Amino acid sequence: MLVHKKDKDAKGSWLTYRPDIKVFDCTIRDGGLINDHYWEDGFVKAVYDACAAAGVDYMELGYKNSARILAPAEFGAWKHCTEDDIRRIVGDNPTDLKLSAMADAERCDYHTDIVPKEQSPLDIIRVATYIHQIPAALDMIKDAHDKGYETSVNLMAVSTVHDSDLEEGLELLAQSPVDIIYVVDSFGALYSEQIRDLILTYLQYAEAAGKKIGIHAHNNQQLAFANTIEALILGAAYLDATINGIGRGPGNCPLELLIGFLKNPKFHLRPIIECITKEFVPLREKMEWGYMIPYVFTAQRNEHPRAAIKMRAGKSPEDYLAFYDQLWDED
Amino acid sequence: MLVHKKDKDAKGSWLTYRPDIKVFDCTIRDGGLINDHYWEDGFVKAVYDACAAAGVDYMELGYKNSARILAPAEFGAWKHCTEDDIRRIVGDNPTDLKLSAMADAERCDYHTDIVPKEQSPLDIIRVATYIHQIPAALDMIKDAHDKGYETSVNLMAVSTVHDSDLEEGLELLAQSPVDIIYVVDSFGALYSEQIRDLILTYLQYAEAAGKKIGIHAHNNQQLAFANTIEALILGAAYLDATINGIGRGPGNCPLELLIGFLKNPKFHLRPIIECITKEFVPLREKMEWGYMIPYVFTAQRNEHPRAAIKMRAGKSPEDYLAFYDQLWDED
Repeated sequence: MLVHKKDKDAKGSWLTYRPDIKVFDCTIRDGGLINDHYWEDGFVKAVYDACAAAGVDYMELGYKNSARILAPAEFGAWKHCTEDDIRRIVGDNPTDLKLSAMADAERCDYHTDIVPKEQSPLDIIRVATYIHQIPAALDMIKDAHDKGYETSVNLMAVSTVHDSDLEEGLELLAQSPVDIIYVVDSFGALYSEQIRDLILTYLQYAEAAGKKIGIHAHNNQQLAFANTIEALILGAAYLDATINGIGRGPGNCPLELLIGFLKNPKFHLRPIIECITKEFVPLREKMEWGYMIPYVFTAQRNEHPRAAIKMRAGKSPEDYLAFYDQLWDED
Repeated sequence: MLVHKKDKDAKGSWLTYRPDIKVFDCTIRDGGLINDHYWEDGFVKAVYDACAAAGVDYMELGYKNSARILAPAEFGAWKHCTEDDIRRIVGDNPTDLKLSAMADAERCDYHTDIVPKEQSPLDIIRVATYIHQIPAALDMIKDAHDKGYETSVNLMAVSTVHDSDLEEGLELLAQSPVDIIYVVDSFGALYSEQIRDLILTYLQYAEAAGKKIGIHAHNNQQLAFANTIEALILGAAYLDATINGIGRGPGNCPLELLIGFLKNPKFHLRPIIECITKEFVPLREKMEWGYMIPYVFTAQRNEHPRAAIKMRAGKSPEDYLAFYDQLWDED
């Protein structure tokens, strides 16, 4: 007989499902890093309709960026994501799909721009923070929580954080009112064994404080879906994905793969395939995302992809060897 | 501190490497399923040079197909892979790179077409078999072994094999002179937990018989690299990959990702990047491989990709929704 030597840390089993699993669509918010969040309303509505019909739990519409720091005239609506923008697409959101906006630490005028929950179609505010911004993030979490929102904290670039700093950060977050703490592989640098260590570490702090864990993975090394599954098996409950894996450079965990994997019958693949066929096939003519060698290098080096972004926008976007030599020569 | 709760079945550790790990390049053989093995000699030589310089352990040049079953005039040289073809590229192979040819059960005139090892530049014969062909495969293994070759058996489409049949098959293979037994995810259908069960099962039979385990993964669900790592962590030693992930449809585990992961200093990434830049960038203009939605569906259904191949070659290669409906309607 086939050996079933289940990993002793695995939660759940093969033919059952965990009802605590939440699928979190980031198509508009994270995909918007490709096009400065200039999405046509019809596209945003199509993604919203697809997510609602597919049984997706949350959809993130964009950022709550400060108009002082990023001038609204220079970006599409979803960089600032006002309540008027949101209502233009979803009205009062008569669906089970919860709506999210992301607020970057030190780039959001949250005291004024995040209105009390009863005045907004939004359900959750996700605070994105680097490790050194945690004090700022904690104030944002408290503000959003006090205004009536669910909150998450997305601790970015964790692949570069020292263990001792992470421990202190997690202790502070565990004491905060935040509902969900995310493992974020900003650089697409993490392998499954590292995801394992991080998820089990985060769980120690989160479970004791009654909080949930999430995973947000990037696809530089074709590991976004695999790492999302790894995190889920070990206990992560909030799973970020984007339709067709859209996102800057290599993009994100593809929602169509994640829904294909999940066994809860509330999830449906067909609406996502319909949206890909009608909206994403033509979009591919206009913008680039997916597996690209330059983003492999930045991930292998555990670096922000900015050098790869610059290289692909430059004069020799396919001279991978020159880019490789340049990166290693600069060391 | 970060929790290091290593999976109890994991072999090796994070900053060390296992010297038993062998990297097996299948670029020409498996990539050749895209173009009926019509590779230009210069391309084959470039791949050979890149593999040798990169420290790759094995390179598979093609199939030893029967000329009675597949007429040589209708295919490129690497469908039949004669010793003359091989010598035209590699001479007497004055490198540490071992050379391989694959022989399909019931499609190879092995008694005549596989010459004694001392007459061939080949080092290993890999026998590909479906579960019901194991008696034929065993005779081929014995023949190649007796002629002086290393041998592997690649048990295809294991995702469709019943546990009890697999057990009997592995018992037979364990008693044979084969050196390596491969877990082959022909349909790109397997998730990490299934890879885990299979690898640990294969290991039980193989280790007792002094044999090694290999992994050959397909990338339909962007899991080829992840599943290869999973198999390696649990004890697989022979790891198949192709340069730039080339292969029919979604292709294979990308060699550039695998080499980036492995820590043995004998492996070098730069020659592979040079080969991608010089040979694969222009090749992309001529042939298609990579992530494609129709191949996701066949994997999710645990089916051979033939319907996806036909769909992509048909009149509406981007109407994923119609293809989805067609597949499910036919059930």
